[in-house]
Amino acid sequence: MTKATSGPTTALYPCPAVLVSCGIGTGANIITLAWAGTLCSEPPTVGIGVRPSRYSHGLIREVGEFVVNLPRADHVWGVDHCGTVSGRDDDKWAACDFTRLSGTEVEVPLIGECPVNLECRVVETVSLGSHDLFLGHVMAVHMDEEVLDDDGSLSVSKADLLTTLGGQYHRIGEVLGAHGFSRKR
Amino acid sequence: MTKATSGPTTALYPCPAVLVSCGIGTGANIITLAWAGTLCSEPPTVGIGVRPSRYSHGLIREVGEFVVNLPRADHVWGVDHCGTVSGRDDDKWAACDFTRLSGTEVEVPLIGECPVNLECRVVETVSLGSHDLFLGHVMAVHMDEEVLDDDGSLSVSKADLLTTLGGQYHRIGEVLGAHGFSRKR
Repeated sequence: MTKATSGPTTALYPCPAVLVSCGIGTGANIITLAWAGTLCSEPPTVGIGVRPSRYSHGLIREVGEFVVNLPRADHVWGVDHCGTVSGRDDDKWAACDFTRLSGTEVEVPLIGECPVNLECRVVETVSLGSHDLFLGHVMAVHMDEEVLDDDGSLSVSKADLLTTLGGQYHRIGEVLGAHGFSRKR
Repeated sequence: MTKATSGPTTALYPCPAVLVSCGIGTGANIITLAWAGTLCSEPPTVGIGVRPSRYSHGLIREVGEFVVNLPRADHVWGVDHCGTVSGRDDDKWAACDFTRLSGTEVEVPLIGECPVNLECRVVETVSLGSHDLFLGHVMAVHMDEEVLDDDGSLSVSKADLLTTLGGQYHRIGEVLGAHGFSRKR
């Protein structure tokens, strides 16, 4: 195992590639983020890293809310588009043919076409350098009924989510095992 | 698109499933974490969420360093094992047949068998509830030469990493597109 060593880089893979909606009404925008993840179970808390120069940063700061929308693999064009153009110049909802849907806990609209939506309220902001970390409490979760298994849990195969690493978007691959399987050997 | 609504849950998918090494020398431990991700590009900063009751929490707190090791799909048994047993009761290095390798910037050992290792130094700790968030600057990155492409970048297919969502571990699936592909249409 010969290792090649480099200086500091952002090589924690894989990453989610989520569509974060922010802002209110016709002023709402969408930004694609890979610097995003769950950080605490109770209360359920997510963290997203956003550059202060981004249009969405001001919207999140101003409203104090955002929605994490999980895209399907067939949304990959929109995922890439919403990560490469600015909401200052583009109506991303129209460009991606996405529908604003009202949430139940926050004023920011959900992306209707995304099978999973997490309504979040900002509880803390931490300046990290190039990015500010917004810590958000999850206030409510919505899932398309058609991506649920009979027991009401998310069906990974039906949801057909995506992930990103190494400069590419990837589909979720084959099942390797269920959590806890090692205890059964 | 009929949505089923629930209260707050940790449904931001997919998640990484990383092996975090912590502690020093023969006292070093390994913990599997899904509450982990990059949060800032410059300086490269990762965040990991760890329950204060976990053995690894004390080791990270005490030493102020940790290493994020990215496992291969064929390490899935070890990934599950290191997430379900405590280092108080088990030598996970031995159980998983993992090798301690010396890093260059921190005293915590890398897991030699993992194709990617990120040496991290804790710069801030934020109490979130059930989990504490350790924010760590990436000090150095090591990659197995055999998982690199000719240009020195990570080959996703050679690295064969894994991800977790919906209570299962999954392989990384097919390529959907490269970052920026939407601008070329």
